[in-house]
Amino acid sequence: MSYKIIDSKDIKNIIEIIKDEDRVLIGENISEEYSHDELSGVNKSPELVVKVSSTEEVSEIVKYANEHNIVITGRGAGTGLVGAAVPVFGGIVLDLTLMNHILELDEENLTLTVEPGVLLMEISKYVEEHDLFYPPDPGEKTATIGGNISTNAGGMRAVKYGVTRDYVRGLEVVLPNGDIVNFGGKVVKNSSGYSLKDLMVGSEGTLGIITKAILKLIPLPKKAISLLVPFPDLDKAIGTVPKIIKSKSIPTAIEFMQRAAIVSSEEYLGKKFPDNQSDAYLLLTFDGDSKEEIERTYDRVAKICLEEGAIDVLISDTDERQESIWTARGAFLEAIKASTTEMDEVDVVVPRNKVSTFVKFTDELQEKVGIRIRSFGHAGDGNLHVYILRDNLNESEWHKKLEKAMGYMYEKANELEGQVSGEHGIGFAKVPYIKKSLPKDSIDIMRGIKGVFDPNNILNPGKVCE
Amino acid sequence: MSYKIIDSKDIKNIIEIIKDEDRVLIGENISEEYSHDELSGVNKSPELVVKVSSTEEVSEIVKYANEHNIVITGRGAGTGLVGAAVPVFGGIVLDLTLMNHILELDEENLTLTVEPGVLLMEISKYVEEHDLFYPPDPGEKTATIGGNISTNAGGMRAVKYGVTRDYVRGLEVVLPNGDIVNFGGKVVKNSSGYSLKDLMVGSEGTLGIITKAILKLIPLPKKAISLLVPFPDLDKAIGTVPKIIKSKSIPTAIEFMQRAAIVSSEEYLGKKFPDNQSDAYLLLTFDGDSKEEIERTYDRVAKICLEEGAIDVLISDTDERQESIWTARGAFLEAIKASTTEMDEVDVVVPRNKVSTFVKFTDELQEKVGIRIRSFGHAGDGNLHVYILRDNLNESEWHKKLEKAMGYMYEKANELEGQVSGEHGIGFAKVPYIKKSLPKDSIDIMRGIKGVFDPNNILNPGKVCE
Repeated sequence: MSYKIIDSKDIKNIIEIIKDEDRVLIGENISEEYSHDELSGVNKSPELVVKVSSTEEVSEIVKYANEHNIVITGRGAGTGLVGAAVPVFGGIVLDLTLMNHILELDEENLTLTVEPGVLLMEISKYVEEHDLFYPPDPGEKTATIGGNISTNAGGMRAVKYGVTRDYVRGLEVVLPNGDIVNFGGKVVKNSSGYSLKDLMVGSEGTLGIITKAILKLIPLPKKAISLLVPFPDLDKAIGTVPKIIKSKSIPTAIEFMQRAAIVSSEEYLGKKFPDNQSDAYLLLTFDGDSKEEIERTYDRVAKICLEEGAIDVLISDTDERQESIWTARGAFLEAIKASTTEMDEVDVVVPRNKVSTFVKFTDELQEKVGIRIRSFGHAGDGNLHVYILRDNLNESEWHKKLEKAMGYMYEKANELEGQVSGEHGIGFAKVPYIKKSLPKDSIDIMRGIKGVFDPNNILNPGKVCE
Repeated sequence: MSYKIIDSKDIKNIIEIIKDEDRVLIGENISEEYSHDELSGVNKSPELVVKVSSTEEVSEIVKYANEHNIVITGRGAGTGLVGAAVPVFGGIVLDLTLMNHILELDEENLTLTVEPGVLLMEISKYVEEHDLFYPPDPGEKTATIGGNISTNAGGMRAVKYGVTRDYVRGLEVVLPNGDIVNFGGKVVKNSSGYSLKDLMVGSEGTLGIITKAILKLIPLPKKAISLLVPFPDLDKAIGTVPKIIKSKSIPTAIEFMQRAAIVSSEEYLGKKFPDNQSDAYLLLTFDGDSKEEIERTYDRVAKICLEEGAIDVLISDTDERQESIWTARGAFLEAIKASTTEMDEVDVVVPRNKVSTFVKFTDELQEKVGIRIRSFGHAGDGNLHVYILRDNLNESEWHKKLEKAMGYMYEKANELEGQVSGEHGIGFAKVPYIKKSLPKDSIDIMRGIKGVFDPNNILNPGKVCE
């Protein structure tokens, strides 16, 4: 692929469109931040950054880029983990963080209309003040909603409430030709042609730029309680999860955690974890509208855990206690990152009753490949986060071992009928693995769809299925 | 579009593939049923019907058709309302009703794997025996699950539980080239490329033939109670719905009904409706795991209804009473159909707070256009079913008035930011209206996607976006 290098005439034209020189960054005004995301290791600076402030600006810039064969990449908070927002072909980065307004809370339709740059934590705070609930709950609260929609972010509460896709009712999108369209809307049902809205969700900025989203809200559960359940070993802990699911008492979240991750988190936060009697824990949350209802459910689940060999069941019904556990859980990624020199991740999802098999497999890989591996994740929905740590390996050893470990893991996930990514997306870093994981027909169809939306391939090329 | 007419050599070849002459129908062995669906008015006989019994058979027949430029249309129970299963270009109809096996209930992953010809009522019966729940609840229980997925069927419980799309985890699909692929799987989360699974849902047999589906189940709510609420008029009844939603007490279903539809249903069933004090009703259902929990919710809602002018609130907590109300509701479509000579329908969906405006508009249309119109529908999710009745009109008057009434209604739906179809799909009958309703970009993208899946346009041509 060959694209036009941005020249001074382009810069002049783009400034003319934006009418505000301060929002068009070039040369040394482009911060180093724009060249990477949080983890993926891929680095490339854009030639130009435009901090857009309206749909119309996005439309005009995209149109200009399309007409001039300039590549364009949308970017939110840059908290991605697979390089989706890194402009691997240079060109323009559209920074959408100034489009950060909550536009409308419609309480009669239970929808919230937002610009793409609104942060996840702002949304939850805003709606909860109105006794409403936006359930998707990824660990990274400083991500933008545009990024969450683009990766179909999942989070802890998927066990009970589903993922971002389930809460997107409508999208305003700027297509690669610059046209502004709406997919879906405030409607609850829709069977009017192919679901282009669902095609946009999880498309990682390759099919269009999301400039507005209508989100579905639900009533805020009145109460939530967490259980921390120590088990003698991880196998027993994770092996309990399918039994909980089978019991039909569905928690809001079921996370698993190992001592190693907890220790990293204690060191990182400088704060003790509230329990130290075991190496393996399940952390469960229950929510609902009455204490009695929640208690009935967690009583059943606590009983199952004890029957399956749990050492104890610690109930966290005070805010402080819940806070201390969830703070530890929330710090895992950063803590593991701080414990090593460099790392990369695997975000596979497997059927829920295969989690134990997969985690055991990754534990054994440490010795087989000779590399440190840490994992934690969503035992209740089958989505694992496995981190491969460089520590003191030199460049060539690191890449050799990393590639080897990843190869083994994706192969295993495939064997267990899992998928390459549960919630982080494919971006740039996972393209080789999705190609191995999906049949050629599926990859060909995805490429065909990309061609339909973006015949000139100017929008975030090199990502997802290329 | 020009396709090959099936000749004796094709018939011979197809019988060779199927190895069972009884499942290949030609000439007068093709029942008249195959030429139409339940409502759409479009009629066309296939040249050949193949009653397939396995994915491999589907694959081989589709491959053969693709290689020989023969058009092919999938068909389930034929209960569609918009002509999606009518072979408007002739060719082969693939009858999928023999692929009617429930393949696996996986209680550890809470999934049910089924063939496409399993009936909706069989699924609900089967899973409820295992204390599990498949929430989508369209009125037509004799539809196949394949048809339900192809139209993204909705039903009564969408208010609380969502639509078919929300319960499809994975699909096995035969592509137009005959290849067998899987989209999604048993996994709870998935961010691995464009969601081809979601593209299939609602694609009305134009992108591939669904040969297997993995459905998501949830625990069966232990109790359900219905409220029948008479109001002085329809406006007051429907106007109460946004207030119920706003109160954050979400019922499972909110239907509205008018005296005229109730009378038709009484005549059709030969059975009195349990209440006759009013012209306009809301029918609400609440479900949950405890009587107290449900009572708390419906108490709040009953109070809102009375504040908004309801005449009474009738609680149906016995099975008989619930049965008699829901039987009446379930018979509306057939009853209205039986009350006239011919009819056609509009299945628009509008934001929930616009339902009242839309129903009032259709009521007034009766006089404006000079035609009888009946409506009922899902007040809680904004999806209306409006029926335009021919009665004694002659052919040319009927078509003139029908077209006029439909034109007005779709225009109004658009104005209210609604969509052409909430749950019945576009099929053949609504193609002109979706073209007017969606921007050209969206239609072009849909056509492009169709071309990517089916470059020879052999699969159910003339539907959805053509």
